[in-house]
Amino acid sequence: MTYCCALRLKDGLVFISDTRTNAGVDQISVFRKLYTFGKLKERFIAIQTAGNLATTQAVIGHLRNQLELQEQPNLYTVNTMFEVAQLVGRTLRKVIEDVTEDTLEQSNYYCSLTVGGQIGEGEHQLYNIYPQGNFICATKDTPFFQIGESKYGKPILDRALTYDMPLDEALRCSLLSFDSTLRSNVSVGLPLDVLVYHIDSLEMPKGKRVTQDDEYFQKISKQWSEILRAGLHEIPKPSEDYLE
Amino acid sequence: MTYCCALRLKDGLVFISDTRTNAGVDQISVFRKLYTFGKLKERFIAIQTAGNLATTQAVIGHLRNQLELQEQPNLYTVNTMFEVAQLVGRTLRKVIEDVTEDTLEQSNYYCSLTVGGQIGEGEHQLYNIYPQGNFICATKDTPFFQIGESKYGKPILDRALTYDMPLDEALRCSLLSFDSTLRSNVSVGLPLDVLVYHIDSLEMPKGKRVTQDDEYFQKISKQWSEILRAGLHEIPKPSEDYLE
Repeated sequence: MTYCCALRLKDGLVFISDTRTNAGVDQISVFRKLYTFGKLKERFIAIQTAGNLATTQAVIGHLRNQLELQEQPNLYTVNTMFEVAQLVGRTLRKVIEDVTEDTLEQSNYYCSLTVGGQIGEGEHQLYNIYPQGNFICATKDTPFFQIGESKYGKPILDRALTYDMPLDEALRCSLLSFDSTLRSNVSVGLPLDVLVYHIDSLEMPKGKRVTQDDEYFQKISKQWSEILRAGLHEIPKPSEDYLE
Repeated sequence: MTYCCALRLKDGLVFISDTRTNAGVDQISVFRKLYTFGKLKERFIAIQTAGNLATTQAVIGHLRNQLELQEQPNLYTVNTMFEVAQLVGRTLRKVIEDVTEDTLEQSNYYCSLTVGGQIGEGEHQLYNIYPQGNFICATKDTPFFQIGESKYGKPILDRALTYDMPLDEALRCSLLSFDSTLRSNVSVGLPLDVLVYHIDSLEMPKGKRVTQDDEYFQKISKQWSEILRAGLHEIPKPSEDYLE
């Protein structure tokens, strides 16, 4: 499985992806699921992938191929983030249709994508793209998308994340969402790929790979457990009728 | 959907079940999913159900019918909790086979059960029963089972729950597990049924129904959000390289 989480906030975009893929429990590999495209001071685009690995790699392969062969449209010639989402959606749909035209069979090859970024003076945007090629857009009300193994890490995002949160605080929040998922599900695994895009910078972030040895991630993981356990003790005891 | 959680701890057993059932989003009902059986000072048995409602009601119906007609074996004549699990498992499997013999088709009628209790001087036990009628038993290492919509509420249990925890603390922990699930998934809904069995009491607990108006549940839900948000602020900021 996979867990990817992407945030669209007042100050920019945050992307975190795990890197574990598995075909059965005895075939576990590390594959990057966070891809970036961009031209300095013109556009920044990030794509996260979850689902069938052959499909996701084919989508990225086609998008790169379009750039290399200067096919039109491509990620560097479309005018808006909306057109980016359309291009990626069409590419995804075509990859799946190329494998099989049987719509029932197609679900075996499904993948989901998040696509975020900014082009020129346009707004920064974040899309969740479905296997059918259509998509939804993050808003102030719902400033995050998750793809893959999303349930374990959803409660902390639901409770704490807001559109106006500073990027570093939102990053902490989503790293804790990953920590919860990593602890509860072995199909999601370290290292993580983290990317923080600052609004209007139109620069490619360096990004950070968080490995098992990462001191900061180890520290917040431990500290968060302590905060939860201490919090549990602060919660008042149930009244007697709960225990009768 | 459904969320049920059952704990087997040093001091006894804890059962919490939600009560929401749905067949599509426009057909939502309240059904109890926590059933009890017992004879004072002799045996206490609790069953939680998740899955196809017709199947779960048929299983409980058959178990009650066996008692009423004094068929052998029944829940009041089997000798151990292991035999209780066997009887419930066989009953479940038969209910599903009665609907259809097509094994592929059977999965439409699946349900999962937890069965816990104590008989005479035997140990208190907790089982997770699969649609095939086989089952696993809770241990000190893994002192809880969840059935239904289990992922949202798993991280807090994974992190905080231990076999040696006092019942009231474990109850708080599992109520918070429910609170997280209720907030993140509308297919799980109040009221909750809570039942705490104190080891060796061999008494039927009164149990408690936790409704929307329950002051204690409202309070801990609010307080837990505050603890998490405050905790998030305590967590140190990420180093600069995370944000570059």
